[in-house]
Amino acid sequence: MSEHHTHVQTRTAERVQPAGGGPVQPRATTTLSPLGFGDVRLTGGFLARLQQENASTSIVRGHEHLERQQAWTNFENAAARHVGRPYHGPVFEDGEAFKWLEATAWEHGRSDDHRLGQWLDSRIELVASAQAEDGYLSTFNQAAGKRGRYEWISYDHEIFNMATMIQAAVARYRTSGSADLLAVARRAADHLADTFGVDKRRETCGHPLVEMALVELYRVTGEARYLDLASYFVEMRGHGTLTDPTWQGWTSVYFSDRIPVRETVYPEGHAVRAVYFAAGATDVAIETGDTELFDTLRRQWDNMVEAKMYVNGSLGSRWEGEAFGDPYELPTDRGYGETCAAIASIQWSWRLLLATGESRYADLIERQLYNAVLSGVTLDGDRYFYVNTLQVREGAIAYDDRMGAAGRQEWFGCSCCPTNLMRTLASWHHYLATSSEHGLQLQQYGAAQVTGGGLSVRVRTEYPWQGEIEVVVESAPDASREMALRIPGWAREATLHVEGEPVAVVAGEYARITRTWRPGDVVRLVLPMAPRLTRGHHRVDAVRGAVAIERGPLVYAIEHLDQEGVAVDDAALTSTELTEQWRGDLFGGIPVVTAPARNLPDGDAGRVVAIPYFMWANRDIGPMKVWLPMDG
Amino acid sequence: MSEHHTHVQTRTAERVQPAGGGPVQPRATTTLSPLGFGDVRLTGGFLARLQQENASTSIVRGHEHLERQQAWTNFENAAARHVGRPYHGPVFEDGEAFKWLEATAWEHGRSDDHRLGQWLDSRIELVASAQAEDGYLSTFNQAAGKRGRYEWISYDHEIFNMATMIQAAVARYRTSGSADLLAVARRAADHLADTFGVDKRRETCGHPLVEMALVELYRVTGEARYLDLASYFVEMRGHGTLTDPTWQGWTSVYFSDRIPVRETVYPEGHAVRAVYFAAGATDVAIETGDTELFDTLRRQWDNMVEAKMYVNGSLGSRWEGEAFGDPYELPTDRGYGETCAAIASIQWSWRLLLATGESRYADLIERQLYNAVLSGVTLDGDRYFYVNTLQVREGAIAYDDRMGAAGRQEWFGCSCCPTNLMRTLASWHHYLATSSEHGLQLQQYGAAQVTGGGLSVRVRTEYPWQGEIEVVVESAPDASREMALRIPGWAREATLHVEGEPVAVVAGEYARITRTWRPGDVVRLVLPMAPRLTRGHHRVDAVRGAVAIERGPLVYAIEHLDQEGVAVDDAALTSTELTEQWRGDLFGGIPVVTAPARNLPDGDAGRVVAIPYFMWANRDIGPMKVWLPMDG
Repeated sequence: MSEHHTHVQTRTAERVQPAGGGPVQPRATTTLSPLGFGDVRLTGGFLARLQQENASTSIVRGHEHLERQQAWTNFENAAARHVGRPYHGPVFEDGEAFKWLEATAWEHGRSDDHRLGQWLDSRIELVASAQAEDGYLSTFNQAAGKRGRYEWISYDHEIFNMATMIQAAVARYRTSGSADLLAVARRAADHLADTFGVDKRRETCGHPLVEMALVELYRVTGEARYLDLASYFVEMRGHGTLTDPTWQGWTSVYFSDRIPVRETVYPEGHAVRAVYFAAGATDVAIETGDTELFDTLRRQWDNMVEAKMYVNGSLGSRWEGEAFGDPYELPTDRGYGETCAAIASIQWSWRLLLATGESRYADLIERQLYNAVLSGVTLDGDRYFYVNTLQVREGAIAYDDRMGAAGRQEWFGCSCCPTNLMRTLASWHHYLATSSEHGLQLQQYGAAQVTGGGLSVRVRTEYPWQGEIEVVVESAPDASREMALRIPGWAREATLHVEGEPVAVVAGEYARITRTWRPGDVVRLVLPMAPRLTRGHHRVDAVRGAVAIERGPLVYAIEHLDQEGVAVDDAALTSTELTEQWRGDLFGGIPVVTAPARNLPDGDAGRVVAIPYFMWANRDIGPMKVWLPMDG
Repeated sequence: MSEHHTHVQTRTAERVQPAGGGPVQPRATTTLSPLGFGDVRLTGGFLARLQQENASTSIVRGHEHLERQQAWTNFENAAARHVGRPYHGPVFEDGEAFKWLEATAWEHGRSDDHRLGQWLDSRIELVASAQAEDGYLSTFNQAAGKRGRYEWISYDHEIFNMATMIQAAVARYRTSGSADLLAVARRAADHLADTFGVDKRRETCGHPLVEMALVELYRVTGEARYLDLASYFVEMRGHGTLTDPTWQGWTSVYFSDRIPVRETVYPEGHAVRAVYFAAGATDVAIETGDTELFDTLRRQWDNMVEAKMYVNGSLGSRWEGEAFGDPYELPTDRGYGETCAAIASIQWSWRLLLATGESRYADLIERQLYNAVLSGVTLDGDRYFYVNTLQVREGAIAYDDRMGAAGRQEWFGCSCCPTNLMRTLASWHHYLATSSEHGLQLQQYGAAQVTGGGLSVRVRTEYPWQGEIEVVVESAPDASREMALRIPGWAREATLHVEGEPVAVVAGEYARITRTWRPGDVVRLVLPMAPRLTRGHHRVDAVRGAVAIERGPLVYAIEHLDQEGVAVDDAALTSTELTEQWRGDLFGGIPVVTAPARNLPDGDAGRVVAIPYFMWANRDIGPMKVWLPMDG
């Protein structure tokens, strides 16, 4: 702990570093480093189009939704220093506004769109004026004044709200060099550091996030007290202080507060909370060099992936408490799979990837992006799922707005997922590659221009529809550099050629090519895109005797609109022989996967027709499922 | 509607009928009639012991718990006519006190226990003094005074609370002849009839129950306006008036208020609400002779049993909203199966049984009593499950008090289930038999003395442990009478002998024997008790490739304490060959069922050892499951 930094020191905005970097920029030496935010860009193809929809539709419509919800009115009321004003939205409405602000900052950094720049300037000015003199900022408590500061710390999300603001400030600073919001962030962080700690309030927020935010602020500013405070919040959790008696379900489990992080075996409770917390604790472990903590967190990640994750990467099987279930409790009925939980997991995996350089973390990022995050938004960027279930049955009732059967929604009372999607997609290109002292690592595939590790390359591909990936070197030093390409764990028969010469590769590892590169050198990776069947763990009841169809990085699903002579609820595969078929009439052209099937218990023969899971509910709403029973 | 009954008429307590009858006593002619409350009694065996534990432990401890919770203090405050007093318990605390009062009345009627009589007298006096002058009675609104009457009708349970009081009053009157509480009930019902209706408040209570209560009060008093009001409440539901914006999950589905009862296909939403409502609507249909409504409800029952019920008879698969799932959404993980929902279903089936005389309704009553109701209380009557899950996994966290992994609890913040169990068990003997113009029907089996339909018989059996049932005629008229014995649907090879002569029987129907009976005549029914395997519906994911063990009326489960070389979470049957074994060391002697098994994925051979599901968690808490995968 370093409580001895003076208040004056921590407010010295001049100490900030020059702009640059993406969401995570470790100070400690890590195996891999993120590239500069402008050093990677998507140049075309599927993800580039989604990123463009995110910019032109999601962020713009998000602006309208936040206006309509009067999210900024709360800040205006706080700025006016009036207490007792009507408050708009849930207590974490500030956080949703700040996540939109972060998304807007990343997108502005990517596109330099003038309107986004104006929005940023005006909103940041408002936020700065709303902040209390001592740095506190949470408009529900400031303007509505219904409760005192931190009076209901388990619920009021005050620290969570400030954490989202800090993250937005980091994005703003790194993408623009402007420290306007960063100054607000520092004041808030200083306030928190003045308020919480071993010799101060011994409490922590009901909703984790501040751990990641404070570490990143430390990374931007070099201010050690922010790292110290993050570390304090990490250790403070797990002692049952957050049990709330007003709701039976709000136990310490819900808050990831049942057991200290160092003793935790599985992430548990509210999935988004648990994974944000794990990611923040990983940040702390990385920056403090705490290998014991780091190794504990790696085991927790392993256990989560083994026993608490759906095939599509979704996390959280319980609607009650939006929570992880017990190990292997993964029913397809009503699997919760909140979009935010998968996003949080990507954030966690990215940190573990940077720290370790192990490709399995990038494997999971890919699985979750395509199958548990993109499923949360329509292809046109306009409507969302909060819950990503793996099954909707015939006769399902539109039980509430979040249910699959009700269809995707434009916005939610709790709109964390849309704003979280926005900031993820606006910065998505940043996750494509990393660098190290040896050279450049291509972590995700998409048509892109990438510069890092001494190399500048162009990636050409129609991934994820096709498996051919061509990397053309555009510039290189006159010295030996390594180019590493991730071979996904599922890519059992991948082939790689460097300037026409075959190179042996192993699925689940990097293919590493070290040579003195010349401009025009071509590396050609072919990932096997034949559809395949996946079986589940024997302890997971719902998938016993069933298979999931996967193709490349995509998990497939059968949707009621496409089936041939079988019904989604009754179809069983009569053969494991899968057939791929290009369907130009669907979604502008996609490969579907079909298989012989019949209806149980004694129906006629037909075929199931599967589309990528994340594309379901883009046309109509109705029965859908991912896991398909095998007949007999 | 008959709003024209005058207030004076409906208050004429002198018009009540002589005491007698059980919980349901139709006025309309029904196929079957319940016996007099004192005309059946359990004389020994398993159920008699449970009924005795209910009397000596559950009701007595219930009295203590209600004292400790200060449930009666609320009535004292209301009686003192002070507003703004501290209120104790949830808004439906009155209802729990009244269910205990009803249980105590049935038990007092059965045993004539002096202490119970004193409790009844003193509590009823208190209740009478708490009632408002105009008949309103709900202490949360009277004494705490936080909200106006019916201000928050979807949540405040005022009408529900009065309904439980009316039910207790009926029990009190029928078991003792005393109209003390009945007078309170009539005043409350008159108040409701004065307040709600087509030309009055067009609303209904968030929690159904009043429908059943009002019909029974009509049956006791002959007062048609109570039946009319019940009919009004039945028709008032299903129009979306109960949507409550304060909680996202409280939609009209939750309240069984999405669709009118005549258009409903499946019971939906909160399971206890939905089934109480269906039972009350059935009462209305019976008394009004509304065959269209009645047939609709029968179809709803069929659909519920087909697609929304677990193998043990539990209802409600969702924790969120304690609700029915979509059709075939029956995951074993976290199956909710609230004890009260199974009790409500028994109440519904009993009404359908009386109306139709079809044995399948008695079949379901048996399944639910043994496997979904008795599972809710320990064998010593002292601790309860609110939730009856079909599976607890290794590593399950004690997430909240209702979770299986936390073990059974002495009481709950919402203690509807314990008090509901008490009133069910105290009146259980009443469900054993019915009568008709033809004679006597034995609906459930247990050692008992039964008089009805002109016959008086003694039933000797060690059911449910053994399948031999001997019925000895003790008295009979000198005329032909029918004795009918229910042959359960599972009893495929039952045999029946009358005075040594074989009689052919069919599973799922009644064996009907018509003759002029003589004292000493013996009917000997043997139900096949060989353990058997049950497979689930192909649409239910969780049970695909799995079997449940049943024996007689009992569903079996494997509990971690008993297994031989296999673990609950990993065991798979390697053979369908079941072995029964008498285990005198368990629970005073029970038949266990064992089968060859091994641990998946590649464990050594062993055996699973199954005990009756309802007996689990009587020794220790740990992994348990009902559905067992078949190996391969």
